[in-house]
Amino acid sequence: MANENIENKNTKKLSVLVPLAQGCEELEAVTITDLLTRAGMSVTTVGLDNKPVTASRGMVLLPDTSIDNVIDKFFDLIVLPGGLPGADTLQQDERIQKKLKLMAAENKVIAAICAAPKALASAGLLDGKNFTSYPGSVDSCSIKDMKYSDKSVVIDGNIVTSRGPGTAMDFALSLIEKLLGKDKRDEVEGPLLRERS
Amino acid sequence: MANENIENKNTKKLSVLVPLAQGCEELEAVTITDLLTRAGMSVTTVGLDNKPVTASRGMVLLPDTSIDNVIDKFFDLIVLPGGLPGADTLQQDERIQKKLKLMAAENKVIAAICAAPKALASAGLLDGKNFTSYPGSVDSCSIKDMKYSDKSVVIDGNIVTSRGPGTAMDFALSLIEKLLGKDKRDEVEGPLLRERS
Repeated sequence: MANENIENKNTKKLSVLVPLAQGCEELEAVTITDLLTRAGMSVTTVGLDNKPVTASRGMVLLPDTSIDNVIDKFFDLIVLPGGLPGADTLQQDERIQKKLKLMAAENKVIAAICAAPKALASAGLLDGKNFTSYPGSVDSCSIKDMKYSDKSVVIDGNIVTSRGPGTAMDFALSLIEKLLGKDKRDEVEGPLLRERS
Repeated sequence: MANENIENKNTKKLSVLVPLAQGCEELEAVTITDLLTRAGMSVTTVGLDNKPVTASRGMVLLPDTSIDNVIDKFFDLIVLPGGLPGADTLQQDERIQKKLKLMAAENKVIAAICAAPKALASAGLLDGKNFTSYPGSVDSCSIKDMKYSDKSVVIDGNIVTSRGPGTAMDFALSLIEKLLGKDKRDEVEGPLLRERS
């Protein structure tokens, strides 16, 4: 049955929403969009303020469209890059908070890396969940029954979290494996030439 | 003496030129600019055609300026991201070829990853040098006394080369270590949280 699900999912493109706030971490943002695109997913990047996005280390990214144009559209997966002040903005933006709660209610996959799990915490999505984040970036008082882990990538049901730029590749590959299976992960991972020598 | 050199280099910002061609590999481009910026270097990204750069997996990047505005400026380091057709463009662009030859004559550090070493080959900079690249991306006939390696990062004098997206982080960290020393590399590498668990 699991294989059957994966096969069905392979026949249509999975849709992914990646919000890009001012001050997002560009290495995380781009590792996510690049690898999920390599896996054949349809990735839509959205800005929050109708401006080019200046990422945390200075790269300027042009999102595909505005969050306002996709707020009522269907996505299989939402992925939040970290970085500051980007993650604070994701936490405070009412449209992002609404979309997170809606997608959680629809049992969609919700993922965040680095400081961005704080946006999931504000939406109540980390209560009682195993999760990780950039150390010290999430206010423990905002989470009921907190189960923090220091693993590179933590998957608990439909919530997937990770730690920082150095775990972004593992994070994206874990999302590919969860949504499209191990064979697709291997197909994407091989050509990256990660093996260290 | 080596330590003294490193200390002197730390007192002023090293300047880095990163050309962004249409179809460059965004994960490589952004890993380079992000990590070198974290190391305190002054990174200038340049476009070749006065347009936003659509990278190989769809992310749109806005370069800081045009190659024409910096062609006569001094840089300590030039780094070429890979990706296709981006690397082909870097190989064919006369301004890039001229800048590579000029910086080589000035004993500056010249680095390329993935398919981009082909641009160094065309400038004659890989003749007799140990180097690596994305497998099969460099025409062996274009290099005299070819010394190809399959290591993740290869440093031969002032020529630094690497293999692909999965080695981009090691590549950028190796450049930081070469130019600013092991302590600076460690200072940048620690907060990335690379350790796998």
